[in-house]
Amino acid sequence: MIDRSPVSTLILFGATGDLAARMLLPSLYGLDLDGLLPDDLKIIGTARSERTDETFRQHAAEAVSEHVGAQYVDDAVLTRFVARLSYVQLDATDAAGYQRLAAAIPNRQAGIAIFLSTAPSLFKPTIDNLEAAGLAGPNVRMALEKPLGTDLASSRTINDAVGKAFPEEQTFRIDHYLGKETVQNLLALRFANVLFEPLWNSQYIAHVQITVAETVGLEGRSDYYDGAGALRDMVQNHMLQLLALVAMEPPASFDATAIRDEKVKALRSLRPITAADVATQVVTGQYGAGAVGGKPVPAYLDELGRPSDTETFVALKAKVDNWRWAGVPFYLRTGKRMPERSTEIVITFKDVPHSMFAAKGARTVPNRLVISIQPEENISLELMAKMPGLDRGGIRLREVPLDIRLADAFADTRRRIAYERLLLDLIEGDPTLFVRRDEVEAQWQWIDGVRAAWTAAGLKPRSYGSGNWGPSAAIALAERDGVSWND
Amino acid sequence: MIDRSPVSTLILFGATGDLAARMLLPSLYGLDLDGLLPDDLKIIGTARSERTDETFRQHAAEAVSEHVGAQYVDDAVLTRFVARLSYVQLDATDAAGYQRLAAAIPNRQAGIAIFLSTAPSLFKPTIDNLEAAGLAGPNVRMALEKPLGTDLASSRTINDAVGKAFPEEQTFRIDHYLGKETVQNLLALRFANVLFEPLWNSQYIAHVQITVAETVGLEGRSDYYDGAGALRDMVQNHMLQLLALVAMEPPASFDATAIRDEKVKALRSLRPITAADVATQVVTGQYGAGAVGGKPVPAYLDELGRPSDTETFVALKAKVDNWRWAGVPFYLRTGKRMPERSTEIVITFKDVPHSMFAAKGARTVPNRLVISIQPEENISLELMAKMPGLDRGGIRLREVPLDIRLADAFADTRRRIAYERLLLDLIEGDPTLFVRRDEVEAQWQWIDGVRAAWTAAGLKPRSYGSGNWGPSAAIALAERDGVSWND
Repeated sequence: MIDRSPVSTLILFGATGDLAARMLLPSLYGLDLDGLLPDDLKIIGTARSERTDETFRQHAAEAVSEHVGAQYVDDAVLTRFVARLSYVQLDATDAAGYQRLAAAIPNRQAGIAIFLSTAPSLFKPTIDNLEAAGLAGPNVRMALEKPLGTDLASSRTINDAVGKAFPEEQTFRIDHYLGKETVQNLLALRFANVLFEPLWNSQYIAHVQITVAETVGLEGRSDYYDGAGALRDMVQNHMLQLLALVAMEPPASFDATAIRDEKVKALRSLRPITAADVATQVVTGQYGAGAVGGKPVPAYLDELGRPSDTETFVALKAKVDNWRWAGVPFYLRTGKRMPERSTEIVITFKDVPHSMFAAKGARTVPNRLVISIQPEENISLELMAKMPGLDRGGIRLREVPLDIRLADAFADTRRRIAYERLLLDLIEGDPTLFVRRDEVEAQWQWIDGVRAAWTAAGLKPRSYGSGNWGPSAAIALAERDGVSWND
Repeated sequence: MIDRSPVSTLILFGATGDLAARMLLPSLYGLDLDGLLPDDLKIIGTARSERTDETFRQHAAEAVSEHVGAQYVDDAVLTRFVARLSYVQLDATDAAGYQRLAAAIPNRQAGIAIFLSTAPSLFKPTIDNLEAAGLAGPNVRMALEKPLGTDLASSRTINDAVGKAFPEEQTFRIDHYLGKETVQNLLALRFANVLFEPLWNSQYIAHVQITVAETVGLEGRSDYYDGAGALRDMVQNHMLQLLALVAMEPPASFDATAIRDEKVKALRSLRPITAADVATQVVTGQYGAGAVGGKPVPAYLDELGRPSDTETFVALKAKVDNWRWAGVPFYLRTGKRMPERSTEIVITFKDVPHSMFAAKGARTVPNRLVISIQPEENISLELMAKMPGLDRGGIRLREVPLDIRLADAFADTRRRIAYERLLLDLIEGDPTLFVRRDEVEAQWQWIDGVRAAWTAAGLKPRSYGSGNWGPSAAIALAERDGVSWND
């Protein structure tokens, strides 16, 4: 029986890093502000940097002030929050540090959650050292931040190392997209409304598009990113999770097993892309110089400072081989230095089978459901309506978007960082919105197949000017099917 | 071959009456304002009152100024409009008047449209006299305003009299609800979107409600109204037309024959209500004294000044006996002295067959499509969404209405009177939005059955306080099925 009681210690590895400053510490503060953290929760930061409890608290206070809206920075709460914090300097490969860490935990019998955001190469030594220091066992939950390996084999190595010390039920693999309201709303939309599910299949859906567009370039993550590329950085995790939520069958209940069983089934139904498919189903790109938001930006290779064949853009046409989705293409694309920051899922329905309005000169446009995740969270259902008027010379129809603009519809609630939800679920022990091992491995299996196929086909990234939607071949990939990307 | 060219003469019977002042003359002015009337169109008013061309023009100018928004009263257009008008005094039963009328028509070979808004008893003599004066024939269109009889037999008598002089193709039976934008939009919604039609049947729709609620009482129409009652005044025409538009199969094209063929099929599928059904499917009421909008109002019998069993309210549970609608109740209700003026169609879908959220304490509410026709035209689709938040203690779902508020969505267009559309269609010869003889007769056939059933069952109207939604038995009629009226 797995312990589902709240932990009293949260250990953050990489506590002085960028993710902690921008997301984790502000999220934990937000939870504290709303009275959602256990009263006795202590948070121990660890990293290689030399910090004292005092300087770490100061760092945390600054991170909160910088990244939380000013109206939410409450001095009393901030004082209470930083009092939860302490710091243990630690080199991941140095066993002695873990003894100090263990000693810093007020109550080692109570629940402990460990948040690991580290380079893949450090997973195994870290886990081994944690175990050796007694920081494993039924009262310890282990949260893992991406990247979980670089391919299926290395992912298995990490998962095996983790699994030796932490059973699957205590392992919380983070995909922060699952913490986003709109992503969770996709489940509500599909399964709390009778309207969509009967139409959610190849009989009524023409195609699905998933776009994750960034305006940024390398952002100083060059070692990691150049070794990964867009496919492994974005598609393998976030985008395949979005695809799985769109494609999965209805889970019987809103619990970790039922939902993840359905997601992994959808992921395993992805048709492998072979070398023969590459020409029509895969386009990779690498940004050249150009302008984004009116400002000139350098080429990827100039930012990197060395030659590279790493893709900063990938467009894929994926297929899900099951009864529901037979014949429905899923177009995925992600890239850096795109014209705008945008994460969205576009479900395009088929057109009406016969239009009674056609002879009157009115064109119908297929219905669409647009789920916007960034920069704004919004769900929009696009319907056709008759334009008011006397219809001389023919009926006029027009698309009307019906918006659930979540910020407006629920204006009374503070908009949370996705990590707030995930950190609280970790503290409280609910794994529903975390990624199970079989999902990660199904994702890698498909991604490895794509990479093997493009290697076999000799695919090289095409250059695209920064500020464009990738190489023109990506546009052709969809247009060959008569489909336009939703730009 | 029917002539579809615009007429050059429009003759309004009852031109000094209430309908002409509130609706017809303002509508014709609105069409003139937008340059939609044929340049040579002359409009001849006739009535029993003594008027000259000059005083009729003055009357028309006043009616326009009173009933058209001030920003739309353009002196130059109004001058042009009244110059189209002339007047012929005429007693409907006096043949000589028709000779004067015929002589007043500038060009009797060109197209003529006649708009007849008169007591049912005058239809036959009027038609006979028009024919005798040569005002029939292939170049004359005849528009008929309700009431077209008081039952199937009298309706047939009228239709026979009309049909003798005017073939069906030249006969334009007006139901002004069909001129309303939202009613026409129901066709666009159903048949220009792929989203609704697959769900538009007994598998997904739980029930349909159609409400036409008025706040007014007798309004001086006591002779007509006390002889008719709510069933014949509202249900027989407007509400059954709305029901037909909701229930009909997809027409193959947007033309008069295809649409009316489908409507009449739906009307003929209405299951007859028998005496045995009356106890559970029919409630009638008559308003007593009470208050509407905070103002005390007298009882129907006090307004009428004599005893009466006429119903001012009727609620019906109708059934449509075909594959699509088997088992789906259509609840209809209409009444005077209701709490608010409201005309709406509410399509309530079935709940999801299984809720994955139920175990998490979240209740789903069935989806609804609410088509509001009065006082505002609006179409609202009610969906469930997840409320933002961390879902401690269970997931929270909430209904979110997605609105096509037509006035906003199409803010650039002047809102028209329903009669504008119908008068222009009459002038131009498009019968699509007019009611065909077989539809009127199917409507009467079903209504006659209801009246015969309630007579056989000895049903008497129950008293309800003005300002209420009818007698409590009307609430019970729906609640017995677990259905609440949408108040």
